[in-house]
Order: sequence, then structure tokens, then C-alpha cells
Amino acid sequence: MSSTPMSTRLFIHDTHVAGRVVDVLIEDGRIADMSPGQPRPEAATVIDGSRYAVFPTFANLHTHAAMTLFRGYGGEVPLQQWLQQWIWPKEKLLDDERVYWGVRLACVEMIKSGTTAFADMYFELPAAARAVHDSGIRALLGDNVFGDADRFVDASSYSAPEWQDEMVRYCVAPHSVYAVSDEGLRRVARYCAENDLRCHIHMCETEKEVADCLAQHGCRPYEHLAQLGLLDLLSHRLIGAHSLYLSDSEMALMSRHGVTAVHNPNSNLKLGSGYRFQYAELQAAGVRVALGTDGCASSNNLDMLEASKTMSLLQKGWRQDSTSTPAGEVLHVASRNGFEAMGVDAGELEVGRQADMMLVDLDNVAMVPDNDTVANLIYAAHNDAIDTVICNGRVVMRHRQVAGESEVVAAVREIARQMHLYRS
Amino acid sequence: MSSTPMSTRLFIHDTHVAGRVVDVLIEDGRIADMSPGQPRPEAATVIDGSRYAVFPTFANLHTHAAMTLFRGYGGEVPLQQWLQQWIWPKEKLLDDERVYWGVRLACVEMIKSGTTAFADMYFELPAAARAVHDSGIRALLGDNVFGDADRFVDASSYSAPEWQDEMVRYCVAPHSVYAVSDEGLRRVARYCAENDLRCHIHMCETEKEVADCLAQHGCRPYEHLAQLGLLDLLSHRLIGAHSLYLSDSEMALMSRHGVTAVHNPNSNLKLGSGYRFQYAELQAAGVRVALGTDGCASSNNLDMLEASKTMSLLQKGWRQDSTSTPAGEVLHVASRNGFEAMGVDAGELEVGRQADMMLVDLDNVAMVPDNDTVANLIYAAHNDAIDTVICNGRVVMRHRQVAGESEVVAAVREIARQMHLYRS
Repeated sequence: MSSTPMSTRLFIHDTHVAGRVVDVLIEDGRIADMSPGQPRPEAATVIDGSRYAVFPTFANLHTHAAMTLFRGYGGEVPLQQWLQQWIWPKEKLLDDERVYWGVRLACVEMIKSGTTAFADMYFELPAAARAVHDSGIRALLGDNVFGDADRFVDASSYSAPEWQDEMVRYCVAPHSVYAVSDEGLRRVARYCAENDLRCHIHMCETEKEVADCLAQHGCRPYEHLAQLGLLDLLSHRLIGAHSLYLSDSEMALMSRHGVTAVHNPNSNLKLGSGYRFQYAELQAAGVRVALGTDGCASSNNLDMLEASKTMSLLQKGWRQDSTSTPAGEVLHVASRNGFEAMGVDAGELEVGRQADMMLVDLDNVAMVPDNDTVANLIYAAHNDAIDTVICNGRVVMRHRQVAGESEVVAAVREIARQMHLYRS
Repeated sequence: MSSTPMSTRLFIHDTHVAGRVVDVLIEDGRIADMSPGQPRPEAATVIDGSRYAVFPTFANLHTHAAMTLFRGYGGEVPLQQWLQQWIWPKEKLLDDERVYWGVRLACVEMIKSGTTAFADMYFELPAAARAVHDSGIRALLGDNVFGDADRFVDASSYSAPEWQDEMVRYCVAPHSVYAVSDEGLRRVARYCAENDLRCHIHMCETEKEVADCLAQHGCRPYEHLAQLGLLDLLSHRLIGAHSLYLSDSEMALMSRHGVTAVHNPNSNLKLGSGYRFQYAELQAAGVRVALGTDGCASSNNLDMLEASKTMSLLQKGWRQDSTSTPAGEVLHVASRNGFEAMGVDAGELEVGRQADMMLVDLDNVAMVPDNDTVANLIYAAHNDAIDTVICNGRVVMRHRQVAGESEVVAAVREIARQMHLYRS
């Protein structure tokens, strides 16, 4: 990408943006113009946008991308049994090659459902980074940490990994307050603060986790981080996946420190963790809420469009309020808020912003009739309505074709066979 | 269809059925053989099934198909306001032509998401029947009735509508126990019983409906039908949409009389009606549970694959039990149970059964790797994984192409414009 000799220029003419027909000019990865009747620029890739509505793409703020390899593996057994008997023994068989192809599959799946950025938490990061680079999208790759986090003793030892660039960034991902010691959490937090790295952690996912924290520390998980002084250190760098069981005082702490709460509705449902995510309460407290799918071993896909619908429906459902969390709002959560939490200047269609966007096919039956384009997208459509995906001004999917897809499918199939993941 | 001079024969070779590689021979609308290594028959349409897994199609047991015209119309406002200010005034503008195209759009959408049969409740039935016939799928079209149901006074007056045949059947659809008088309900029930017609009704959808029934009649809705003697008359013919708020004694009544309960998870969530559908309790009581989407004005699409996932996730979620309602079970609910309730001998892949089936693309990224085909279909895939749909032995979608789709889209768009449903 750094070797591109001249500006990349993309011109989408006569397309639909928020109910207006405009031309979109993209230069050097950013939206340069978005007005009607522009002259066709020289040396540009031209797309006829007349049958499409343009939307910002999604940012998937909590995944374990390589776990696409385990999609459907192990069936619907209780969580601990499934982890111990099925997943953990197989995870030992993972190497950098297998992680590479798992992440490639994840990226194809995310691109095909309109996602161009994700915050991940796993291992074999150099291989994962190579896969994301080869896919042309953005990621924040979290280095998964357990126990005492020994490798983060000395904050001055930081040097940016050689695979890190504008598109793929390094972060630290302590698993949780129960799987990382207090000393480990302190080391990670200092390391993140001194090197301005994001910190991605599972927080308040289950009732048991909160009860155990109360029993062990006399306070709830976010309060525990605060008491250790870590919310001061981490502040806006902290991305708290799940954040399902929160007290008012925790929400106040999260707000004060600029923590991002990442809702994972399908994962919470599928694992039976719960469903009463406190979206309105977090909004009222001023906490940024982003959306994620979790990995394919928890829920089974990486589809943010589906997660957006589930989030909205679930809020309306448990609150018994059909007006709760309308389509436009959930779109902000799934897009703008996620990019913001990652520090990427995308997620809204505005001149000057980075050009991460998707072209939604208005001829797709779920988009017909076009009484409300946003409602159609969130509540009616599926990924097959997403025709074209652009990340950082580059086309990563056109007419639902993603480069290398069949090679990725073949490689993952072979890996699943080698790892004996198949039923037969 | 009656003019077809000779048998229609379809041969799908080397395809995947429940983990086995077989050839599927379809003759005269039924599965004639399903074993490996069959000789290729003469005069057959031949499909290479090697990249596909075959599943039974879905039966959508509660819809208002023509309401695809209102998809996304009116936004997320409180239910009564939305009905009174938005929907009802526009419904007055519907005529047979508009209903025809609304149902055509619904059928295209259902075919593209793997549904070949639906139980509907609306009006302009001859136009709707024409649309279903032209689409090549099955429907049970419910004649929507309010108040005293005057046209069902004399049960002996029945003559099958001329549009009725094996594929499209007539039934009576009293709206609900609160919108139809006791006398109206009696008339309908006698009419259905004497003419062996299905009766499709909204039952126990909201807490308010149950509370109002208790206040007015001193008993709950199904108990009210029982006290009027109508459960005896209707028995297995009764299809109770929603059936969300049920007492144990109602479930016992439903079981004794063979009533079908139709779960509509997305509609219940979106309207804020509730979410604690008592699937396990209905199972234990021996009540047949089928699945539906409701109309596009309640939830916003007609996708039974999505409804299947929502049903399973919701059960796991509110019960906090990840083992509840596994993929194979929800597939039975969405397919076999629905066909059974409609009286159609499909919904399972067995020799002798009617050939309603779909070919699911094993190369679709959501189906990769193939660790568990059923889990992949229900929890990971979307409609774009469904490549081919067969109804009654005839191909109604091939490589995601449905005949007449662009004509349907253009017609619906024009109708929405004429009815001033568009935002602008």
C-alpha cells in the first residue's frame, strides 16, 4: 500500500446518500466530495451508483477471528464442558498457518456482510496481521494475556510490531479480571498507557463473573479496575467486551473514564449469558456503546448487520417498548461508535472522513419498496443486499465477489480436516 | 399445472443429505428415490448436487403476505398510533391489483429464503391466490373476519373457491377473540368444522389481550374458545398465531384438541409484545409448535431462516441455558411442524413425501468449515447460502434466480409511489 505511486481515486456517480442523489468522490482513502453533478474526474475508477444506497460500513468491536475454524464445532453443550472437551484441546493444534487462514475466512465473511474494521482478541498475531493485510480491511489485533502477564513488566520495552501500520494496529487483550491477576492487569495497563495502546478485555459477561469478583474483591469488575487505579491509566483506551451486568456506579465510572462498552447480543443469547443489555442506561450515563459479534465459536457468524437487528429487537423486546433503539440509532452504534472506539475516522459519510462505505442494492427484494431505506437495511435485509464494499478508499468487494474467496474456502476446509473438526 | 402432459422428473446427483452422499430422484412432485449410485433417469432435469446439502424447505405459518407493500412504512412509533395514523388509512387504498403484486413480492422473498408454503391472513383472496399460483409455491389463504362474521351464517353454503387447488387452499381467519364477537366465532367454527377448513387466528399475543379477556369473560382466550365449544369443533384445524401468553391449563386444552401454536419471535420482539415463548412447556404438554414471521409491517421480512435462529437464541437467552432448542429441533419446528399443521406431506426428506426442498451451498463462507451442517445453516448462514428451491417437485429458484423478480420489484415500487408510502 505504501508503494502506491499515485493517488487512488474512486468516483461513484448518481448514488443515494441519506435520501439525496449525489456523486461521491474518494481520493487517497478519504471522501473528497459528496455533491450532485460533479464532473467525472480523470484517472478514477468509476462506479454507477444509481441502483445503490451508500451507507458507512460496520466496525465489529469484539471478535476472535481465527475461531471461524471452529464454526459449529462441538454443538450445543454446556459452556465449561464445551470449552474443556472440545475447544481447548483443538486450540493446541493451531499454528500460524492455521490462524492465517482462519482470519482470512473471517475477513471474507466480514467484508461480505459490510464490515471493514474489527477489534480482535487471540494469538499468533503476526499471522493474523498478514491475513488482515491481505484482505484489505482494518483491525485492532489484541494480544491475549492470562495470569501475571510477564511480558509486560517493563513498559519501556515497547517497539511497534513490524506488521503494524495504519490499517492493522496492535493492542493488548487481557482475558478478564478473573483470568488475569491483579499484578498482570497492572502491568498491562501501564504498558498500554505508556505506549498509547488500546486494551481489549472481557468484562461483566456473566452473573457468575460479577458474583465471583464481589466474593474475591468485595466489589464489581469495573470497580475493581478503578480501585487498582487502572481506569485512570487506561481511560478511553479500554474496550470492555460484553459489559452486560453493570451497576449504576460502574456505568458512572465507565462514563467518567471514556470506556467503550461492546454489546454482543447474539453471543450473550446463544451462550445463555443473558439479554438485558442496559443500552438506554449506558446512553443516559454517557458511555459509548459499540457492537460486536464475538467469535464464531460463541455465536456462529461475524455478521454485524444481523447483530444490529438483534440488538434493536432485543431492546424493544425485553423493555416491551417498540420505540426503543430505532434503526438509525443502532446503525450509529454498529458503525460510528465502533470506529470511534478504534480511533478510526470513519463511520459517517462526511467529506474529509476516511472512505469506508458499502453500496446497498435497492433492487434486492428486502429493500423493496423503499419506504424507509434505513429500516429496510437494519430490519429486512441480509448481507446479500450489500453489493460493494470499500475500505480506506479501495474496493474490497464488487458485486459480492471478494478476491481469493475460493482459495480461502479450500484452505480452511483442509485445515478442518487435518484438525479432525469434521463430524465424520 | 393440470395441463402438464407427462410426469415431471428431477434428478439431483451426488448431493449431501443428512451427512450421506446420495442421488435424489423426484417424480410427480414426490421423492421417488434417495440412495447412492442411481442410474441417470430418462427425460429428467438433472442437477449436479455435489456442492450442496439438501434440506427440507420452511413453512411460514403466520403471515400477512401483501403487507410487504408496507415494509418499513411508518417507522418505530407506538403500536396503536402506527395502526391508526399510518397503516389503516393506507390499507383502504388496497385493491386486488395491489394485493396481487404485494403477494408476488412476498413469494419471491420467501422463495429466496427457502420457504415454499405459508399460512396467510388478509383479504382480496382471489388476487392473492393468483399471485401464489404464479409463484409456484403453496399457501393456506385465510379470509380475514371481524365482528359477527355474517357471511358464515349458513355452513351449508360452502363451495370451494374456484382458485383453490392442491397448492393454494382456502381457510377462515377470524382476527382474534377481541375483534370477533362470540357469535362470529361460533359461525366461523361451525363453518370450518362442517367444511373441514383450517381456522387461523391471533391468540394470546399480548398481556393486554389476556387481561381484557379475563375482565370480559372471566377466563383466558383459549379457555374462552373452549367454553364456547369451539375447540371441540375446530380441533386440529385451529392455528393459533403468537400464543405467547399461555397458562398451563390453556396448554393442556391446546394439546387435547390438537391446536397448533405458531411462534413469531421477531414480531413479538419488534412490537415489544414479549419474548418468553413457552416452547419447552408446549413441547412437554404435547402441543405442536410451528414458526412464522408475521407480516412485513410487524417485523420487516419474511425470512424463516432468520426466524429459526431468533427462536433458538431467544429460548437459550431467556432461559439462560445454552443447550435449549438446538439447531436440529428448531429446523423441525420451522419445517416439518408447519407443513403438518397445513396438512401438507412435506418437511422431511423421505421417499414418498412431497418434494419441497432446498439446496444449500456448501461453498458459502457461512457454511465453511462444515463441522456441523445443521448448526451452520441455522446459526451462521443467511438466505444467500440457499442456491436452489424446489416446491412440489418443480424448481422455483435456481442459482438464486426467481422468475419474474425484476417485474415484481418494478410493480411494487410503482404501487408504493401511487399510495404515497415513500418517505419523500
